[in-house]
Amino acid sequence: MLVGIDIGATSLDIALLRPDLGIIARHAQEADVEAGPGPIMARLRSLLPAMLAQNGIAPDRVLAVGIGVPGPVNFAAGQLVNPPLMPGWDSYAIREDLREITDAPIFVDNDVNLMALGVLWRQRKQIENFLVIKVGTGIGCGIVCHGELYRGSTGSAGDIGHICADVAGPLCRCGNRGCVEAMAAAPAIVAMGLEAAQSGRSPALAERLAAKGLLDAADIGAASRAGDAEADAIVRRSGRLIGQVLAALVNFYNPSHIFIGGGVSAIGPMFLAAIRQSVSQRSLALSTRHLEITSAPLGPETGLIGAGVLAMREALRSGGPA
Amino acid sequence: MLVGIDIGATSLDIALLRPDLGIIARHAQEADVEAGPGPIMARLRSLLPAMLAQNGIAPDRVLAVGIGVPGPVNFAAGQLVNPPLMPGWDSYAIREDLREITDAPIFVDNDVNLMALGVLWRQRKQIENFLVIKVGTGIGCGIVCHGELYRGSTGSAGDIGHICADVAGPLCRCGNRGCVEAMAAAPAIVAMGLEAAQSGRSPALAERLAAKGLLDAADIGAASRAGDAEADAIVRRSGRLIGQVLAALVNFYNPSHIFIGGGVSAIGPMFLAAIRQSVSQRSLALSTRHLEITSAPLGPETGLIGAGVLAMREALRSGGPA
Repeated sequence: MLVGIDIGATSLDIALLRPDLGIIARHAQEADVEAGPGPIMARLRSLLPAMLAQNGIAPDRVLAVGIGVPGPVNFAAGQLVNPPLMPGWDSYAIREDLREITDAPIFVDNDVNLMALGVLWRQRKQIENFLVIKVGTGIGCGIVCHGELYRGSTGSAGDIGHICADVAGPLCRCGNRGCVEAMAAAPAIVAMGLEAAQSGRSPALAERLAAKGLLDAADIGAASRAGDAEADAIVRRSGRLIGQVLAALVNFYNPSHIFIGGGVSAIGPMFLAAIRQSVSQRSLALSTRHLEITSAPLGPETGLIGAGVLAMREALRSGGPA
Repeated sequence: MLVGIDIGATSLDIALLRPDLGIIARHAQEADVEAGPGPIMARLRSLLPAMLAQNGIAPDRVLAVGIGVPGPVNFAAGQLVNPPLMPGWDSYAIREDLREITDAPIFVDNDVNLMALGVLWRQRKQIENFLVIKVGTGIGCGIVCHGELYRGSTGSAGDIGHICADVAGPLCRCGNRGCVEAMAAAPAIVAMGLEAAQSGRSPALAERLAAKGLLDAADIGAASRAGDAEADAIVRRSGRLIGQVLAALVNFYNPSHIFIGGGVSAIGPMFLAAIRQSVSQRSLALSTRHLEITSAPLGPETGLIGAGVLAMREALRSGGPA
């Protein structure tokens, strides 16, 4: 029995998994990481024992726990390091916090790294060099090199959200201008959607805003799919900017596949189409000739299954951390 | 006995190396790859036997030959694939062309990959994840991942010359705008130098131009070091643009070291300083905290020694190709 936990910027997702990574039980709820680790960790400490009990699983049958978090992780220490989306979590001792509910070894990694592990497991090592891109509240990338997850020299590899997409772009919270995350991730899509609704340029979005009192990225996606030109332009613009950054990474890394996941990836087929178009325009022909850009193969469960893969692999490798 | 050959955009460099990669003899001359493979390969076929004879080495004592070329290589086939700097070399059978002068196995790779192999050998595997950047007529990158050279899924990894540095930049021969190679490599530096000389903005460059009838990148470097403000601005601009592209790659790849080599890297300390400044401005703190950006450790011989490393490694691995 493995436990996979995916802490997103706006959600908490827990799964009990068999050693073959089949999901036995899953619980997802909204959560806000910006509120700091306290509330989320308290919820985990009550939810996980309850899930185990409901499924008739004794706590000592848990082999290992894998946890994904949306920020850079010092993998050996199991701690977040200066996470831009979740400042209150800096250096927080996630593992120690769960000690009271399980004796099993606990492994913490960046959420996109876990998606990459999930895809790697799903592909059964048939592809060796690929990228997994998560587009949600932030934008991150998991890198697989020679069939192994690549974390970089200090664990921050794949931190692509602050790559510049436009030198004259808006100011990002990191202090630079035109970061792709500030221009193309969910908050930027929502801001553009609100603007289109409030200015009256998009009747469809104005209607949704009036009905709900707010908009999320899925609303802009739905309006785009329903034929609203403004919403469509917002979706395309986001895809184009992300594609521009990916074009540079394709020239550099020459992956065979790029898998796109995360909440925003589901907002409509135009998003993926715009990414593909932008990459093929700006990358070298030699790098794109055999490149496939598709949705992440395990859908919204990619990260959870990856958390299970991490738990299994690391438990087997190390016998568990101290 | 190993033979290392470094075919540059404007030079041909040959070395006889001991199995410990000490250089026994070296011959370098100017050459023009744009003229196609015929003249350069003919020169190689006469130069190499002469070098062996001069050093009293029987041709059958050559264990293996490593050759670096300035373009994307299909490593298994030993052929260049659509090389932008040397169109006449596309799919040319370099290995077959040297069969008449040696029976030793011949291995062909991209020149920057060979620099990366040279650095890897020099560092004795003490660093695992690093980049080698070559700035000359073109701009390329060698990638080392988990202590191994990384060629990408179709062999074109590191082809960073056409990454966009400025969406509003000048048109590049690849058809896109603002490629870093078109804005910051030797031809761009020379073009800016000529402009500064002819417009009278740089008296130092005007004087050099009048004396020599032409300018090369080294002239702009010399004028910069001698205090010419215009030349200095050109050197800094090139470093800044390259640093901008590297900043994105640092966020993505999180290398521990970046080694800068190639002809342009020697034009002055301001070049490296501008690269460093630009990277640290645009990369995330977590990625740059332990990042070192320095000159390639083996200087202009990095590629030649890498060619020797390639020859030795591949001959040991495969017993030689068919």
